[in-house]
Amino acid sequence: MNYSAILLKKRPDITITSDIFEKVSKPVPEIAEGEFLVKQTHMSLDPAMRGWMSADRESYIPPVELGEVMRSSGIGDVVASRHPDFPVGTRVMGMMGWTEYFVAKGGLSPVPTSVPQEALLSVVALPGVTAYHGLYEVLKPQAGQTLVVTGAAGSVGSMVGQLAKLEGVTVVGVAGSDEKCHWLTETLGFDAAINYHDEDFAAKLATATPNGIDLFFENTGGVAQQHIYQRMNAHGRVAVCGMIADYNTATPQPGPNWMNIVRKRLMIQGFTMPDHFHRFAEYGQKLAALMMDGKLQYRAHTLHGLDSAIEGINLLFSGENKGKLIVAL
Amino acid sequence: MNYSAILLKKRPDITITSDIFEKVSKPVPEIAEGEFLVKQTHMSLDPAMRGWMSADRESYIPPVELGEVMRSSGIGDVVASRHPDFPVGTRVMGMMGWTEYFVAKGGLSPVPTSVPQEALLSVVALPGVTAYHGLYEVLKPQAGQTLVVTGAAGSVGSMVGQLAKLEGVTVVGVAGSDEKCHWLTETLGFDAAINYHDEDFAAKLATATPNGIDLFFENTGGVAQQHIYQRMNAHGRVAVCGMIADYNTATPQPGPNWMNIVRKRLMIQGFTMPDHFHRFAEYGQKLAALMMDGKLQYRAHTLHGLDSAIEGINLLFSGENKGKLIVAL
Repeated sequence: MNYSAILLKKRPDITITSDIFEKVSKPVPEIAEGEFLVKQTHMSLDPAMRGWMSADRESYIPPVELGEVMRSSGIGDVVASRHPDFPVGTRVMGMMGWTEYFVAKGGLSPVPTSVPQEALLSVVALPGVTAYHGLYEVLKPQAGQTLVVTGAAGSVGSMVGQLAKLEGVTVVGVAGSDEKCHWLTETLGFDAAINYHDEDFAAKLATATPNGIDLFFENTGGVAQQHIYQRMNAHGRVAVCGMIADYNTATPQPGPNWMNIVRKRLMIQGFTMPDHFHRFAEYGQKLAALMMDGKLQYRAHTLHGLDSAIEGINLLFSGENKGKLIVAL
Repeated sequence: MNYSAILLKKRPDITITSDIFEKVSKPVPEIAEGEFLVKQTHMSLDPAMRGWMSADRESYIPPVELGEVMRSSGIGDVVASRHPDFPVGTRVMGMMGWTEYFVAKGGLSPVPTSVPQEALLSVVALPGVTAYHGLYEVLKPQAGQTLVVTGAAGSVGSMVGQLAKLEGVTVVGVAGSDEKCHWLTETLGFDAAINYHDEDFAAKLATATPNGIDLFFENTGGVAQQHIYQRMNAHGRVAVCGMIADYNTATPQPGPNWMNIVRKRLMIQGFTMPDHFHRFAEYGQKLAALMMDGKLQYRAHTLHGLDSAIEGINLLFSGENKGKLIVAL
C-alpha cells in the first residue's frame, strides 16, 4: 500500500508558491521493534511554518531541509505498533509533517479520543500554548487592565483574548474583516473589535481604549502596530509573537521610534514556543480543562486532503482563513 | 544680600534657545524653624532636563511649570540652619534647580566633603545610579557576553561600560568623536569604541562584535541603533535609557522592524530612574565604594557661573561635551 507525502523542494522567494513543493508516493513502511505507525488524520497549518521554509539560520529552530517532508504538527491514530506505550488505537499529537503516515519511536503525545481533533489542534496545540505562555508569562495580566491583541481572530489571538477576559481584563481585538470582528465580540465576548482596514482605525482604537493600553499581544505587525504602540500606558507590556504582515514582504515596514519605550518604560518581549517546550503539557492541561468547561470557544477552518495544504497555507497570510486552519486527511 | 536663579519662561519649540529662560535676582530668604539654607556650588546638567522642559504630560515626571526655577540636581553646603539633621557645614546633594541658594526642609542627602563634588555628580548621582540600575536590573550581564553601549563617552554610558568590564563582559562603546573613542579604550579600558560618524560603522561594529551582541544599552537612538539591533543574539537584552538623538528633532526616525524581536526573542525594556528612587542610596554606596577603589574613572566638563547653564545645556545634544556636564557656581 502506498501513501502520499509532500516534500519541500525549494526555498520560497517571497510568497509561497506551489512549485516549491513536490508530492511523492511511498510504500507504507514496515515497523521495527520499538516503533509505531501513525495514520495522520488532521494536520495543523500555522504561520510559523513560513519561517521553517526559509534558510534563515538565525531563526529559532532549524529550517526544513530541502527534500525533507514539510514540517507541521498534527493528530493521528496508531494503526500498527511494536511499542508498549503506544498500542494500536492510541490517538497521538505532535510533529509529523505533511504526510499521510508517520513512523515514530516516541516524541508524540497521547491525546483523548473523546475530544474532536479540530478542538485539540485549535485550543490545546501550538496556538493555545502560545497564547497561554504569552499572556501569563510575558504580559502578566491584572484585572482592570486593557489588552489589545492583533490577529485577534486567528488561532493564537482568539485564545489570548478569551483567556484575558477570564482574568477580568478589557479586551480589544484587531482583525482583518468585519465578519471576524463580529465573531470576536458576539461569540467570544471581546469588549471591542476593530477592522484594521478601517480608515478611521486610530479613532476607533482610541474610543475602544479610553484608559489607554496596558498590554499588547502582537501577532501581525503592519499598520495597526504604530497606533497601538502610541496608546501604550506607562509600564505597559508587549508580547511580540509574530509579524505575519511582514513574513511575505521583501521590505518589512519600519517599527516605531523607541522614544516611547523610555517615556512609558515599556517592556517588549519577543518569544517563540520552542524555547518553552517543557511547559507544553502544563499549559495544555489547563487549556483542555477550560475548554471542557465551555470557557474557550474556537472555530476551525478545515481543508480536505493532503494537496489542499499547498494552496491552503497562503490563507494564513492573506487573512482569508476563518479560524484555525486545519487539513483533514 | 541678593542671589540669582533662572526660571523657565517658555516651552522649547524644538531646540533649547536662551529666550525660554529668565534670570531673576532675589533676596536670600530668612529661614524658619525646621528649614536650612544651602549655597549651591555645583549643578548637574543632564539630557533628561530636555524632557522636564516640555509640557508632555505623558512623561515620567511632571514638567517644570512655567515661571518656576529650572529643575536640576546639584551639590551645595548648608550655610544657615534651623534643622537639627542639617547643621551648618553639611554638604548635601539633591534637586535644587538653577539657583545659587536653596531653602529646604529635607529632601536632600548628606554627602562626604572628602570627595570632590565633580566626582559625586559624575559617579554617584543620577548618571551613575542610572547606569547601575540599567546594567544590573535590566541587562543582567554574565561574564563572556558582549555589550554595546551608545553615548558611551557620556556620563551614563561611561559608567555602564566600566561596570560591565568589572563583570567580565566584552564592552564596545559607540561615541561621536575619535577623541571620545580614544578615551574609552585607552583610559576606561573598553575593548573597542566606534565613532558613529564613520562611514563604515556597520563593518567596524561587525569586527568589534564577532560573536554578535548579547546586551545593548541604548542612550542615543539615531543611526547606530539599526546596526546594533541587527547584530543582537538570540535572547539578547536591550535597556533603553535615552534617545538623545531624537530629543531635539521634530520628526524622530522610525525604529527597526519588530521581526527580529520574535526571531531572536529579544527583551527590550525602557526605564527611567524616578521609578527607582528607593534604590538610589543602595546604588550610590556601591558606586562610591568602586570609585574609592579606583575602579571607576570619570571626567567632568565644568562650566562656570549660573548663566553658563543656558547655553551649556545644548552641549549635551550636540555631543560637544567631554564628560559629565557640570556648572560650578
